[in-house]
Amino acid sequence: MSFAPLQNDTFLRACLRQATDYTPLWLMRQAGRYLPEYRATRARAGSFMGLATNTDYATEVTLQPLARYALDAAILFSDILTVPDAMGLGLSFALGEGPRFAHPVRDEAAVRALAVPDMDKLRYVFDAVTAIRRALAGRVPLIGFSGSPWTLACYMVEGAGSDDYRQVKTMLYSRPDLMHHMLLINADAVAAYLNAQIEAGAQAVMIFDSWGGVLADGAFQAFSLAYTERVLAQLHRTHAGATIPRIVFTKGGGLWLEQMGALDCDVLGVDWTVNLGRARTLVGERKALQGNLDPNVLFASPEQVQQQARRVLDSFGTPHRGEGTGPTHIFNLGHGISQHTPPDHVDALVEAVHGHSRALRAA
Amino acid sequence: MSFAPLQNDTFLRACLRQATDYTPLWLMRQAGRYLPEYRATRARAGSFMGLATNTDYATEVTLQPLARYALDAAILFSDILTVPDAMGLGLSFALGEGPRFAHPVRDEAAVRALAVPDMDKLRYVFDAVTAIRRALAGRVPLIGFSGSPWTLACYMVEGAGSDDYRQVKTMLYSRPDLMHHMLLINADAVAAYLNAQIEAGAQAVMIFDSWGGVLADGAFQAFSLAYTERVLAQLHRTHAGATIPRIVFTKGGGLWLEQMGALDCDVLGVDWTVNLGRARTLVGERKALQGNLDPNVLFASPEQVQQQARRVLDSFGTPHRGEGTGPTHIFNLGHGISQHTPPDHVDALVEAVHGHSRALRAA
Repeated sequence: MSFAPLQNDTFLRACLRQATDYTPLWLMRQAGRYLPEYRATRARAGSFMGLATNTDYATEVTLQPLARYALDAAILFSDILTVPDAMGLGLSFALGEGPRFAHPVRDEAAVRALAVPDMDKLRYVFDAVTAIRRALAGRVPLIGFSGSPWTLACYMVEGAGSDDYRQVKTMLYSRPDLMHHMLLINADAVAAYLNAQIEAGAQAVMIFDSWGGVLADGAFQAFSLAYTERVLAQLHRTHAGATIPRIVFTKGGGLWLEQMGALDCDVLGVDWTVNLGRARTLVGERKALQGNLDPNVLFASPEQVQQQARRVLDSFGTPHRGEGTGPTHIFNLGHGISQHTPPDHVDALVEAVHGHSRALRAA
Repeated sequence: MSFAPLQNDTFLRACLRQATDYTPLWLMRQAGRYLPEYRATRARAGSFMGLATNTDYATEVTLQPLARYALDAAILFSDILTVPDAMGLGLSFALGEGPRFAHPVRDEAAVRALAVPDMDKLRYVFDAVTAIRRALAGRVPLIGFSGSPWTLACYMVEGAGSDDYRQVKTMLYSRPDLMHHMLLINADAVAAYLNAQIEAGAQAVMIFDSWGGVLADGAFQAFSLAYTERVLAQLHRTHAGATIPRIVFTKGGGLWLEQMGALDCDVLGVDWTVNLGRARTLVGERKALQGNLDPNVLFASPEQVQQQARRVLDSFGTPHRGEGTGPTHIFNLGHGISQHTPPDHVDALVEAVHGHSRALRAA
């Protein structure tokens, strides 16, 4: 496979802690329901999985936010739960509800029956990666992603989202052997899945540990971090001559940032509870930082959005300038953009991030 | 008012960072749905508010867990939302759902109409405090409580629980002036409410900042911590010759523990994401620490419950022994006990906490 040369490497450079002219920006869930053009495509596709499994639709919606906004990266349109779906758990999305598995993993027999799925069952994802990469034509880099082993386990055991994670934590505390077995399989599956995305054209990969933050201190390290580490150890570092940056985001993981600083990855994503200046002090000499505007800021006026965006940039401070490597920042939200976001407020955000981050470097 | 002398002051001593023979223990939501006797009383009362507003019922359910378990404190049976209810927002609890306000505070007119409620409207709470204190007959101390100004504001604006706190954060980011106005009123109302509980017989008070952890860094300090501080500044320090310890618990507030260490209170509650040893290093010379077992541990076997309880005690380490003051620990869960908890697992927990904490001191 060969692709058009990359025209905007700002995001990839920042991932690798290299100097950039401005702070690159992308938004978690940037291709999504807040965009009317997304809702139109989804209506044509009939369902969320109809959208995610169709290469043309997935390409179309991935590119939609780039047509509106000067974002510095694209991210594959897909779901974090494709891997357990390929394991046979039967993923579905009821309208207006979250994901649901027809066959949750609730007992020893179900855990023992789990295996790393045949990656051919996820071919639709890798095809989408290649199609999107071609359609991007080098405009910005494409990020591939997966849920973390622990986050997948949460959904696999609960069968759906949860308030209290009672089922999955009951298994964790009462049958840690089963939980470790499931996480081992998940980790190897996630590694194979991300490597196949890299081979298909993903230029960076991100592990979403969306539910790591619900774990107790001690349990987080043993049941989430250790398996994220196992994924990272298996990932391709380079592909087709390019370095593939690896991003890890644990929502609610701010307390464990120092321990996450030891992970073999390039970027740590942080949510809005984290002070970026403090995070930079703790891990900025080892990792690029990604984040962390509260998505709810986007409901305020465009002027207020810009003020809060400047605040986030200022809290990180002036990034590394000049040769070699040093502390860098990739602007993002602290979680996915809300479906209720007014699209023109995102214009204000992009303008503020690019403008103010250039000003910071000039100061 | 005069009450029977206190027979077990372990909890109060630990709050004030004084040595105790063992680590005292109580459980958030210890009078609750996991107990069959509670469900029976609630069925007789007809509704949650029927239970909370009836002095006899409130006394009965407050004492139920003490009849089963050797807990070291009682906590008033009530709800954190009684104050906004007294402000006229119309609190109700639909069966199987969370609280709901008939009149959420969504616009400037509604905010401007808010006022500190006449404490007479909360007389049922203060009557319950006195009745419970009498019924306890000095067995263990009674804790009074309130939601924090910010946590009350979350419910007042959202009108119910929320996944994303979109309404309240929209007001916070777009109309910070209105949010500050509401928080000021909430703080003064909470202070009056807690002082009246103290006057009615509460021997310690706790502020539940259940939703402080959803705020962004910066916003937490300005919109939650500052108003908790405003409450604390107004509270009675002593009553009827006794010191009244003040406890502050911010769920998800672990990242701000050092800043919370500067609060004018005696105890900081922490959830299960916090490492107690690290918390002790950060604030143990200024505050007692309360917490922090994941309530989901109680779904594992009694032996596993005991192992995890010992792990929490060990993570704090040996508490202060001897004269004067020093680091102390009050064992609790990191959040309310689940309604699905098997009651006999709580027996195992109490036994492990009392037994192992005596052993720790003897070592």
